[in-house]
Amino acid sequence: MLSFNFTKIPTILFGIGKVKEINTILPNYTKKILLISAPKDILNSKGKFDQLMEAIEPKTIYHETVLREPSPNSINSLVKKYKHSEIDIVVAIGGGSTIDTGKAVSAMILHDVPVEDYLEGIGTKKHDGKKIPFIAIPTTSGTGSEATKNAVLSRPGDDGFKKSLRHNNLVPDYAIIDPEFMVTCPRNVTSACGMDTFTQLLESYVSTDSNPITDALALSGMQYSIQYLIPTAIEDPENLHYREGLAYAALMSGITLANAGLGTVHGFASSIGGLFDIPHGVICGSLMAETNRLTIERLLESPSDENLKYLRKFAEVGALFENKRLSSEEQIEINCKILIDKLQEMTKKLDLKRLGEYGINKSSIDAIIEKASNKNNPIQHSEEDLRIILENRI
Amino acid sequence: MLSFNFTKIPTILFGIGKVKEINTILPNYTKKILLISAPKDILNSKGKFDQLMEAIEPKTIYHETVLREPSPNSINSLVKKYKHSEIDIVVAIGGGSTIDTGKAVSAMILHDVPVEDYLEGIGTKKHDGKKIPFIAIPTTSGTGSEATKNAVLSRPGDDGFKKSLRHNNLVPDYAIIDPEFMVTCPRNVTSACGMDTFTQLLESYVSTDSNPITDALALSGMQYSIQYLIPTAIEDPENLHYREGLAYAALMSGITLANAGLGTVHGFASSIGGLFDIPHGVICGSLMAETNRLTIERLLESPSDENLKYLRKFAEVGALFENKRLSSEEQIEINCKILIDKLQEMTKKLDLKRLGEYGINKSSIDAIIEKASNKNNPIQHSEEDLRIILENRI
Repeated sequence: MLSFNFTKIPTILFGIGKVKEINTILPNYTKKILLISAPKDILNSKGKFDQLMEAIEPKTIYHETVLREPSPNSINSLVKKYKHSEIDIVVAIGGGSTIDTGKAVSAMILHDVPVEDYLEGIGTKKHDGKKIPFIAIPTTSGTGSEATKNAVLSRPGDDGFKKSLRHNNLVPDYAIIDPEFMVTCPRNVTSACGMDTFTQLLESYVSTDSNPITDALALSGMQYSIQYLIPTAIEDPENLHYREGLAYAALMSGITLANAGLGTVHGFASSIGGLFDIPHGVICGSLMAETNRLTIERLLESPSDENLKYLRKFAEVGALFENKRLSSEEQIEINCKILIDKLQEMTKKLDLKRLGEYGINKSSIDAIIEKASNKNNPIQHSEEDLRIILENRI
Repeated sequence: MLSFNFTKIPTILFGIGKVKEINTILPNYTKKILLISAPKDILNSKGKFDQLMEAIEPKTIYHETVLREPSPNSINSLVKKYKHSEIDIVVAIGGGSTIDTGKAVSAMILHDVPVEDYLEGIGTKKHDGKKIPFIAIPTTSGTGSEATKNAVLSRPGDDGFKKSLRHNNLVPDYAIIDPEFMVTCPRNVTSACGMDTFTQLLESYVSTDSNPITDALALSGMQYSIQYLIPTAIEDPENLHYREGLAYAALMSGITLANAGLGTVHGFASSIGGLFDIPHGVICGSLMAETNRLTIERLLESPSDENLKYLRKFAEVGALFENKRLSSEEQIEINCKILIDKLQEMTKKLDLKRLGEYGINKSSIDAIIEKASNKNNPIQHSEEDLRIILENRI
C-alpha cells in the first residue's frame, strides 16, 4: 500500500530573466532585505547581479558576501549582527554554500541560541520551524539546496564536523532559477555539481523511502541530467539551453532528496567530506559507478519482489541513457548493465578522478567506513562491501 | 527555452490511517478549530470520522456541516458567524464542495468584505493571499481541490454563476489523503469524479502552459487513473489498493491543473455547469473522447513542430493505456487513435451518458457555446468545431 509524506516545496520561478521578477514575490510589507551573495565579481557575468539589485531597490539592502562553506561561527556572527535590524526577508544568491548560509540565517534570526544547539548529532534541541521568509537564487546546478529543508554547516579542523540544521519549514519559500547566472560556471565545477545532481536523483529514485511523486520528478530530472551534463561540461558551457536543463535537474534533485533521502554514495560522501578536502561532487562522481555496480550485484543475488522493484528502477535509468524505456522484465539485467557502463563512461568523460589522487589510501579506509552509512540505499551494504567499493576507487 | 512558474503545493500526508496524524501537523498555538464537514453519517464509515475527532481533541472544535455547493451567501454567513471566534485553523473533510467551503472561509475570515468582491468575473478586487491555515481532507477522488489554489462558488438561479475565488496562497497548507474515507463512495460518484480527475490530468498534460514538472506529475497520475478507475467503479469499490490509486491520481490532477491549467472540455464544463444541473464529472466524461478526437484531428492537419509536440503527448497517453511507452515518431498517429478508442470505451464502461439525456438539445447549443472557452487547449477550436463536438454528444 502507498504511504508517504511529502513536504513543502518552494514556489518556483524558472527561466531566463526570472531574477528580474523578484519584486513580484517580495511580501508587501518588505522594507529591509538581508542579501547574502557569492562575491559580486563572480556573479556579475552578463550584468545579472546588477539586474537583481535594480529589481529589489529601493528597499533597504544589507549585503554580506560569502567566501566559504558556512560554519556555526559564521552563522552565529551574521545572526548577531542582524538580529535587531528588523530584517523582513533573506535573499541568497550563489552556490550551495551561499544558499545554505542564507537558509541558516533566516532560520536562526528569530532564535536566541547558538546554531550548534539545533545541529543534528551535535546539539540537543530541535528547531521548531520558526523563521523569516527566504528566497534562494542558485548560480550553480548542483546541490539542489534551493529546494531542500536542511543547511549543511561545517566546522573545520580536528574536532571538525559537517552537520545539518533541518526542519521541513526550512525549505526556501521561493526559488528563482535563472540559467543566465550559470553560464560562467567553470568546467570542473559544472562537472562536479552535475555529478552531485545526478547522484542525488538516482539515489532518491531507488531510495527505500521513495514515493510516486519523487519517482516521477527524479526520472524527469535524470532525463535532463543525462541529456545535458556532458555536453555542457565539455562541448558548449555557454549554451543557455543546456544550462537550463542542468538547472532543472538540480532543482528536481533537491525536491526528491528532501522527500526520499539518499543512498550509500552520499553515506560515503558525508564521511569522506568530513575527513578530506575533496569537492563533494567529485566524491559522488568517483563512487557512483562502483557503488551502484555492487548494489545491483547484491540485488540480483536475491531477487525477491522487493529487490526486483529496485532492479526495475535501475534498469529504467539504464534505458533512459539510450533514450529508450524499459519495455519488459527480460530487459532488466541488460539495462542494469547499460547503466553501470554509462556511469563509468560519464565519470571518465567528466574527468572525475579516483579518490587516491586526493590522498585517500588503504590506511584511510577504516576511518571512512567508521563514519559512512548506507542511508536509504536499497541494499544495506556490509562493512566488507563498503571496503570493496573504496578499494576499487583509490 | 524553459520558462515557467510553479506555485506552492500542500504538505501531503498520504495513506491509510494518516487522518490520525493530524495532531502532528496542527500548529503549536492551535486552540480553536473550525471543522467543516460533509454530513457525519456519510463520513463515518469504518469509524473514520470518529478517528479524526479523537485525534484533534481536546482542542475547541466548532463544527459546521456542508450539504451543497458553496455559494457567496453560504461563505459570507459562515465568515460572519466565526469572524470573532479567534479560529486558528480551518479543517475541511468531505468532497469538493466541502473542501471549497473550507478553503473560501479560511481565505475570507481575515477580510471585511463580502466574497463576491473577490470573485473572478464578478467582483473588482483581487484577493491578497491573506488567510488562516487550512487543512483539506478529501473523501472523494475527483476535483483535486485539496491541491488547487481556487474555490468555486455558485449562485444558483437565472442570474446564476459559477466563479472562482483564487490566489496562489489559497493552496491548502496540508492535504491528508486517507483512502479509507473513500471506500463507501457510490459507483456513480466514483465514475464521475474519476473522469473529472482523468480529464484534469490529460488536459493539463497537453496544456499550452504545461512544464516539465506538471508533465511528470500528470503522467504519473494518469498511470494510476488508467489502472484503477474502471476496476474501482465496476469491480471492487471496497478495494483499498484501488482507492488509493484513484486518490493519488486526483491529488496529482489538483497539482497539475493549478500549475498548467485545463482545456476545452473544462471550458465546456464551466459553461454547461452554469446552465444545467449535471454532475461536473459526467459533463467531462461525456465530452472527453469527442473533444480530444477533434483536437487531435486538427493537430494532424497542420503538423508544425509545436503541434507535433502535442501529438506526441497524446500518443504517449494512448501508449499508457496499453501499458507501453511511445518508442518512435512513427507510432504517434496509431497511439493517438488508441487514446480516442480507449476514451470512448471508458465512457461506455463507466456508463457516462450523452448530454441529451440531461435535457441538453440542439436549441441549447448557442447558449453553451457563448459561455464556453478553449482555455489552454493545444487547439483553439472555432465556434463551428465546438458546435460539432456538442452535436455529436447530445
